[in-house]
Amino acid sequence: MKKFISPGLLVLTFLLSAIGHYAHWPDTLQFIISAIAVIFVAGFLGKATESVAHYAGQRLGGFLNATFGNAAELIIGILLVREGMFETVKASITGSIIGNLLLVLGLSLFAGGLKYKVQRFNVPLANMNGSLMIVAVIALFIPAIFLQTHVLHEEDRTTLSLVVGGILIVAYILWLVFSMITHKKYLSDVVEEHKPEDGAAEEHGPAWSKKRSILYLILATVMVAFVSEWLVHTLDTFTQKFGLSEIFVGAFVVAIIGNAAEHSAAVLLAMKNKIGAAVEIAVGSSLQISLFVAPVLIFISHLFGKPMDIVFTIIELAAIGVSVFIAKSIIQDGQTNWYEGLLLLSVYAILGVSFYLV
Amino acid sequence: MKKFISPGLLVLTFLLSAIGHYAHWPDTLQFIISAIAVIFVAGFLGKATESVAHYAGQRLGGFLNATFGNAAELIIGILLVREGMFETVKASITGSIIGNLLLVLGLSLFAGGLKYKVQRFNVPLANMNGSLMIVAVIALFIPAIFLQTHVLHEEDRTTLSLVVGGILIVAYILWLVFSMITHKKYLSDVVEEHKPEDGAAEEHGPAWSKKRSILYLILATVMVAFVSEWLVHTLDTFTQKFGLSEIFVGAFVVAIIGNAAEHSAAVLLAMKNKIGAAVEIAVGSSLQISLFVAPVLIFISHLFGKPMDIVFTIIELAAIGVSVFIAKSIIQDGQTNWYEGLLLLSVYAILGVSFYLV
Amino acid sequence: MKKFISPGLLVLTFLLSAIGHYAHWPDTLQFIISAIAVIFVAGFLGKATESVAHYAGQRLGGFLNATFGNAAELIIGILLVREGMFETVKASITGSIIGNLLLVLGLSLFAGGLKYKVQRFNVPLANMNGSLMIVAVIALFIPAIFLQTHVLHEEDRTTLSLVVGGILIVAYILWLVFSMITHKKYLSDVVEEHKPEDGAAEEHGPAWSKKRSILYLILATVMVAFVSEWLVHTLDTFTQKFGLSEIFVGAFVVAIIGNAAEHSAAVLLAMKNKIGAAVEIAVGSSLQISLFVAPVLIFISHLFGKPMDIVFTIIELAAIGVSVFIAKSIIQDGQTNWYEGLLLLSVYAILGVSFYLV
Repeated sequence: MKKFISPGLLVLTFLLSAIGHYAHWPDTLQFIISAIAVIFVAGFLGKATESVAHYAGQRLGGFLNATFGNAAELIIGILLVREGMFETVKASITGSIIGNLLLVLGLSLFAGGLKYKVQRFNVPLANMNGSLMIVAVIALFIPAIFLQTHVLHEEDRTTLSLVVGGILIVAYILWLVFSMITHKKYLSDVVEEHKPEDGAAEEHGPAWSKKRSILYLILATVMVAFVSEWLVHTLDTFTQKFGLSEIFVGAFVVAIIGNAAEHSAAVLLAMKNKIGAAVEIAVGSSLQISLFVAPVLIFISHLFGKPMDIVFTIIELAAIGVSVFIAKSIIQDGQTNWYEGLLLLSVYAILGVSFYLV
Repeated sequence: MKKFISPGLLVLTFLLSAIGHYAHWPDTLQFIISAIAVIFVAGFLGKATESVAHYAGQRLGGFLNATFGNAAELIIGILLVREGMFETVKASITGSIIGNLLLVLGLSLFAGGLKYKVQRFNVPLANMNGSLMIVAVIALFIPAIFLQTHVLHEEDRTTLSLVVGGILIVAYILWLVFSMITHKKYLSDVVEEHKPEDGAAEEHGPAWSKKRSILYLILATVMVAFVSEWLVHTLDTFTQKFGLSEIFVGAFVVAIIGNAAEHSAAVLLAMKNKIGAAVEIAVGSSLQISLFVAPVLIFISHLFGKPMDIVFTIIELAAIGVSVFIAKSIIQDGQTNWYEGLLLLSVYAILGVSFYLV
Repeated sequence: MKKFISPGLLVLTFLLSAIGHYAHWPDTLQFIISAIAVIFVAGFLGKATESVAHYAGQRLGGFLNATFGNAAELIIGILLVREGMFETVKASITGSIIGNLLLVLGLSLFAGGLKYKVQRFNVPLANMNGSLMIVAVIALFIPAIFLQTHVLHEEDRTTLSLVVGGILIVAYILWLVFSMITHKKYLSDVVEEHKPEDGAAEEHGPAWSKKRSILYLILATVMVAFVSEWLVHTLDTFTQKFGLSEIFVGAFVVAIIGNAAEHSAAVLLAMKNKIGAAVEIAVGSSLQISLFVAPVLIFISHLFGKPMDIVFTIIELAAIGVSVFIAKSIIQDGQTNWYEGLLLLSVYAILGVSFYLV
């Protein structure tokens, strides 16, 4: 592992990517450099998260990772809201939710499951996560169905969006109180007596000190945010060449790259049999997007004087709904294996093809 | 507790409410008096139920409470059906189901969870309850979707309603056979070794004898039925002043007041760590409404020569559907905590605001 | 048991049915003879499956049974696809899925539950089955919703059908790898210490040798396939007399008769407390239909130059969706009883009446 995160290559690709962006190199070149840089900074972030998780416990580590990972998304979201690009915001929120629940979680279970026959994590936490995801789906579904069936006036669209958004933010803050304070132990990780099947290469504690780990976590997050943005920036021109629809780019390309940090961190943790932390990153990140980032963007849109509502399109709702159902079904017993990862990836592929054809 | 149910105030407010109703006092005054009276009679009913539950076991006690509580709803439903007010009947059935699953269950888990970190009840019962709720949703959903997509003729609407209603009644009667006779022990409550966190104030047996408890249970139910009706009666005029829609009044105001008995009984039991009985009241009551009261009203409507069908509106179905999904998700592991109660209340708030804006 | 499968009557009814078919006896007579013959050959198949299951383990036995049972359906499906009867194919796929999940599983749980208070089987397997069923529903639901909302062009219908079909076939093959090879033991049956309540008549090993059991399994499957086809052949004329709609015949009559083998085998195993094998037959068969038979038929339709798509009608999707939800809810705890069987049968009855009225 330590070899993989070569500090030299990390700094080099990051700087090249920065130079390419500000010096307006050709888009294709920018895209390639940034994509490589993302791999390194994401790897760096994964390593830092893992190290912090060692000191802070798997769940807090997972939460920190999800929060730092989503900080980038929140910033990008605010920029898009300011420009009134509501459709793109919603597409990328959709993509972020399904990307975390299907791609990140799927790859984690698959990679972890190839190494360990069965991986276990805290069952009550799995159940709580499932219920929270259902509430998130309900909060998006109810306004949409009330507006679709025309039982609500258009004027009430804004009111309903703000009230539902407010309820979600309160629910999310209380979830932090519940999971970090009142019921921290109840949701804490199963003590894993994991015996790697290759019978070797057990980890010998973290590479960095506690202080340094936290510093690196923050640094890595900032680097990921920057590189992600530079990369996303190249996509407009780049994807036009391939004729991809805006919703596909928003829901898949942006979401995959924007969640690169979560991807690598979760997969690495899963491969170290810390499946609880991997699930926390994937599910926690999608919960944070739907219960916190999305509602906050609605409130912020009012500050800009361009109110965004909470009403997603039917296909976005369908995509979020099926992702939540299959993810809930798979995590609810607190046991995972490679095939469950594959099932999540299958659903991601089905959605990917469907959105690609739009 | 004994102090709370002051017999004097109970009788006084009940009589004042009766006088107000029959002497046609101003609606606002009637409303206030009846609302206060409801608190006392509901408290009385809660105490009686608790006492009966002590002798009969938590589940039978819960069932008795649900039945007595729904007797009032059945009577009100019959009166409305006779007058052909089918929309109001369906709105109040909807409100009763979601009120029990979200508000009553939510308050119970929340109040109980503030006192006890984790409350546990019989897992197989939780699973059976979940499956029964799903069947109830399916029984409402299938006729609606077959009629919405116009694959059924309007003439078949009545036939389908009667057949589905008949299936539900048979399923409900057999559920009683199953849960009370053949599998009583299988579904019986977990023996709680509850140690109240304040380390004190443990109950010292019931306040009343077995005979007297049963008598009081019946008496309290009758009183609740009367006060509920007097209160509901004031709502027509009262709500017009506030410009609330009929569906909101039916689904929320009527349902909250009509279920006051279940509310107080369930919450009090939850706070005594008898969460099994609290869940039985809340879920059992909503099952009784959907599997027994609603189908019986359809059959009774035919006796009056004004056939009511089983087809609910899309938003009613959506409200019932999401309530069942989140309630099932939360109870299925047989473990509850305050945050799960809060999640149920959040969904109730989302639905409440949506229906309020209609 | 041995008395029941009278070899003489088995051969006699089979031959009579064959003669009736090829000599073009009156349809009503053909129908009656074939229906009787189906009972015997299905009983024969049940006995052979049970015997093979004894040697091969419950799960492999269940899988073999499901595969042999579905071979007949695949052949019939290919014949229908060649003639371009896509609606009938989809109706019979729908009927096969819901017939297995509701009727076969329902009867098994009901019959087994009457004899044994609670029957248990492997919980991780129940969870995996539930997740696979959800994926199957998603694979049918997503193309339908994307096409219904007109976000997809009609030209993409074929592409999407092929891609989704391909994903399902890969997922199914990997499921076999997972369940038969990498995680065979993880999903293996709970060791049942079943004590029959009548305290007697315990089985004394299988009736046949291993080799003979396998031979009989193949022979019985072929016989069932033939008799099923002869019986289905009589239905066209026969059902016209009763004025049944094509979708009802496809989804209920054809599916019930076509799954006679699974029915009898699963119910017999359930009554011997081998509920794991019974669930494997019912759920495994519906999974095989949705994840393998249906996609294969799509690919085969392209060979015939008449492309069939994966888009089912709304009521077919609704029927499959509710069947999966209730079946998943019931099996997910790995414990079954007679009332859960009854719930499945109730939903089957509701769907049956609804389709009958179409």
